[in-house]
Amino acid sequence: MPTTPQTDQPTPAGADATTGSGGAPGADGDVVLDLASDVTTLTAAVCDVESVSHGEAQLADAIEAALRPLGHLEVTRDGNTVVARTSLGRSERVVLAGHIDTVPLTSVPNLPTRQVNGELWGRGTVDMKGGVAVMLRVAAQLREPNRDLTFLFYECEEIEAAHNGLARLAQTQPQLLEGDFAVLLEPTDGGIEGGCKGTLRVEVVTKGIAAHSARPWKGHNAIHDAATVLSRLTAYEAETVTVDGLDYHEALQAVGISGGIAGNVVPDSCTVTVNYRYAPDKDTEQALAHVRQVFDGFDVELTDAADGARPGLQLPAAKAFIEALGVPVRPKEGWTDVARFSALGIPAVNYGPGDPNLAHMDDERCPVEQYTQAEAAMLRWLA
Amino acid sequence: MPTTPQTDQPTPAGADATTGSGGAPGADGDVVLDLASDVTTLTAAVCDVESVSHGEAQLADAIEAALRPLGHLEVTRDGNTVVARTSLGRSERVVLAGHIDTVPLTSVPNLPTRQVNGELWGRGTVDMKGGVAVMLRVAAQLREPNRDLTFLFYECEEIEAAHNGLARLAQTQPQLLEGDFAVLLEPTDGGIEGGCKGTLRVEVVTKGIAAHSARPWKGHNAIHDAATVLSRLTAYEAETVTVDGLDYHEALQAVGISGGIAGNVVPDSCTVTVNYRYAPDKDTEQALAHVRQVFDGFDVELTDAADGARPGLQLPAAKAFIEALGVPVRPKEGWTDVARFSALGIPAVNYGPGDPNLAHMDDERCPVEQYTQAEAAMLRWLA
Repeated sequence: MPTTPQTDQPTPAGADATTGSGGAPGADGDVVLDLASDVTTLTAAVCDVESVSHGEAQLADAIEAALRPLGHLEVTRDGNTVVARTSLGRSERVVLAGHIDTVPLTSVPNLPTRQVNGELWGRGTVDMKGGVAVMLRVAAQLREPNRDLTFLFYECEEIEAAHNGLARLAQTQPQLLEGDFAVLLEPTDGGIEGGCKGTLRVEVVTKGIAAHSARPWKGHNAIHDAATVLSRLTAYEAETVTVDGLDYHEALQAVGISGGIAGNVVPDSCTVTVNYRYAPDKDTEQALAHVRQVFDGFDVELTDAADGARPGLQLPAAKAFIEALGVPVRPKEGWTDVARFSALGIPAVNYGPGDPNLAHMDDERCPVEQYTQAEAAMLRWLA
Repeated sequence: MPTTPQTDQPTPAGADATTGSGGAPGADGDVVLDLASDVTTLTAAVCDVESVSHGEAQLADAIEAALRPLGHLEVTRDGNTVVARTSLGRSERVVLAGHIDTVPLTSVPNLPTRQVNGELWGRGTVDMKGGVAVMLRVAAQLREPNRDLTFLFYECEEIEAAHNGLARLAQTQPQLLEGDFAVLLEPTDGGIEGGCKGTLRVEVVTKGIAAHSARPWKGHNAIHDAATVLSRLTAYEAETVTVDGLDYHEALQAVGISGGIAGNVVPDSCTVTVNYRYAPDKDTEQALAHVRQVFDGFDVELTDAADGARPGLQLPAAKAFIEALGVPVRPKEGWTDVARFSALGIPAVNYGPGDPNLAHMDDERCPVEQYTQAEAAMLRWLA
């Protein structure tokens, strides 16, 4: 695997140190990732290969090129998704997964990365190129891991599910994703986040009869009818459901409302968009039945849904993982791709460097010790 | 005043008779209106000079040219607004007013006019070129009316008030509008409609705190807060207020609602647009105070308002008008330009040919006897 020396590039304004380059143009212009560089340097290098969703080709090329020479891994490329697997005949197989795309850069470009006061700043430093770098470091170092490993670097997680590389492989080559346990290296700020809640959206629609607003008795006001819809939402008491030892807080929220034709017209329609986040003890059908019950008497239309995932923390692989890491275990409240593993029958958790509250933000940044801690934790578990 | 012979133009499909032309190109290409033709013929001629708002110049020219030769009238032109006044030293002065613009034509052109089964079809036949033709006929015939008369033909009633010719004259030359009583010849389907309700719009805004909809406890849902706003609207009992003997039905209606950031975000703001139609015993200030009281505790912002008009039916000029016409008297529920006369201290009513429910419609049309009845009624009153 070709390597390049670290370079001293000009320091951006406000930066007090540059990160040495873990990636640089190779002889033919391709980016070369140096898996021997420390995890922070490697994270910066992975971030500095811009890879907004649908633009992951260069980074996928670099990851593939870095992994191909490693004799203990079998590498498969599918679109801009790269899978690398050991085949050591271990009794357990663990999948480590991370998406390689990011949301778009801000108008004041937040690349290249820079280190300021012990934090690495820039797009992807939280979501989730630190996790990607940890995976690359583990792949390079553990030639004889205690469990068989599958590394999944996938495209298009930040956009519509139709483009998601993990979702595609689950359909077309599910055998590549087989495993007893999966860790998604999404940012969790140092803790383990188990499973995830499901989510569905419905449109609750009220219908009226249009009329001139000076003569409303000739019509029927659909927005006024939405009072009942909103009152049921305000009166709703969301449940907290314990699943496999973790408490999931359900939520039923209006996320949109619209109605009205003109300033002098009684409106004939009003649509309330409602998002239900439900504990992973329910599937979509059960969750939708519950929502229909809440809005009994109204027209309720399902617009989209994604089931959650049970944390499966009682399983041996999960228990060993938690024990090895020795960090707090929390429920995952938001929906993540762990649900896609769950749908394949593979229990999965989230664990990765970075504060998720800083994901997608203009000031995305991560303390560099979170990268080294995550790398150390994974090596502790798998070495 | 030049006149032209009636012509037999081709009959449009579906028409069983053509209306003789009361208007035709003059020697220099200008349209010439023949005030000696019968009122239906003259209505058709006025309609056939297309005059969508901002495009009234040709019709204003024709009206001015038709009135200038009449020795008993003093004619003033202001933009595309034409005023003609008698000065006979009568003890009372009556203003007859009508706008000369129309809303746009439909995609299947509804001009030229055509007569079908005793109805005149086409843009303006209801709103309100029949009234304009009646005014022209009265102006031409009554050289010695029993009251001094002011005829106001004005532009841009169908669009934003900033362009309204009546509103402009009220500001710049109010002496031209002086009078003891005004009749606006807007369509009333044969009855007299007195005064009009006022109208104001407010935005009632709720404020929340955005958060991920999987973790709503970190935010505050502004759409949920709108439940109270809508509940107050549904519980609201609008009053019926008797003013000068007519019953005005007030109304408080949501005419719009909007809120929401994204399908997975707790919304931080929701805006309910509310329209209050209030009896002419109140001014804007009193009406707004009432609305603020209804939505006490919420942020209420006034976006626009227009006071109504008292019918003033107890005044001698109004009484004589009602007596001479002998037709039903009703309150005007919608807002009209009678309120502009009211603001000048001139009581005003609506009376004109045409069913207002057909105004602005693709199938705008009026039984021709309504034109002749309106002309006869005005002559009965003023001759």
